[in-house]
Amino acid sequence: MEPMADAHTNDPKGAARANREFYRAFERLDLEAMHAVWLDDDSVQCVHPAGERLVGRERVLGSWAAIFRATESIAFELEDLTIEIVGDLAWVSAVERIRAGPGASARSVDPRPAGEAVATNLFVRRDGAWKLVLHHASPVARRFFPG
Amino acid sequence: MEPMADAHTNDPKGAARANREFYRAFERLDLEAMHAVWLDDDSVQCVHPAGERLVGRERVLGSWAAIFRATESIAFELEDLTIEIVGDLAWVSAVERIRAGPGASARSVDPRPAGEAVATNLFVRRDGAWKLVLHHASPVARRFFPG
Repeated sequence: MEPMADAHTNDPKGAARANREFYRAFERLDLEAMHAVWLDDDSVQCVHPAGERLVGRERVLGSWAAIFRATESIAFELEDLTIEIVGDLAWVSAVERIRAGPGASARSVDPRPAGEAVATNLFVRRDGAWKLVLHHASPVARRFFPG
Repeated sequence: MEPMADAHTNDPKGAARANREFYRAFERLDLEAMHAVWLDDDSVQCVHPAGERLVGRERVLGSWAAIFRATESIAFELEDLTIEIVGDLAWVSAVERIRAGPGASARSVDPRPAGEAVATNLFVRRDGAWKLVLHHASPVARRFFPG
């Protein structure tokens, strides 16, 4: 049984674990695991880098099925990951460095990134488990702002 | 004085008002109002449609100063707006239909959109007031997923 140490605290471990499970389901192209990551509620929302806004469990999970069908392999490294928690809501943000296509599994020896995306992942805590309610990923076009 | 009716409830009116104040500050290119919209905390994050991830109050507010300097006029219409609240966290999502450039003020008679973006706006409630902690806007490239 999973430890419940952060069931009523702001300890980020549970949200960090849920975020890892999301990317693990994506890398394994495991639709059942991806279903389990998301909250079972029609308020869920998803924006993939192609840009379209998807609302509702059927459209969101249907998009993952389409992506998994079209993907041979994909791997992620997350940079500059932050986790913020307020009550039963956590938002995890990071820059995704993405390798996709043949030979891009997590075991790949070719580290060339296929692209970068900024991801906002919003989790809600229900019965001690963090569930994804919003994923918003968008391409990093270029450095634009100074600082 | 603002009504405090939703200070401890899930009434979306306060979050809706805070979201309107964000877009009003943007349309008026009012940097002081934009500063007031954001939480005074270095955890704030912002992703503009150009795609770069900005973290911290100085970088986020600096980006708004740069955008306001470069913008003559801009106006927004929000479509398919949703508001979800869990405790003291609210996320407002919508498709922004954007008109920018000369003659693009809210009074413009030219309704042609200059572009569309999907926006995720995350607000935290502090002392009864909703403050922006994350803005993630990304361009809508094309329809991609069925349904």
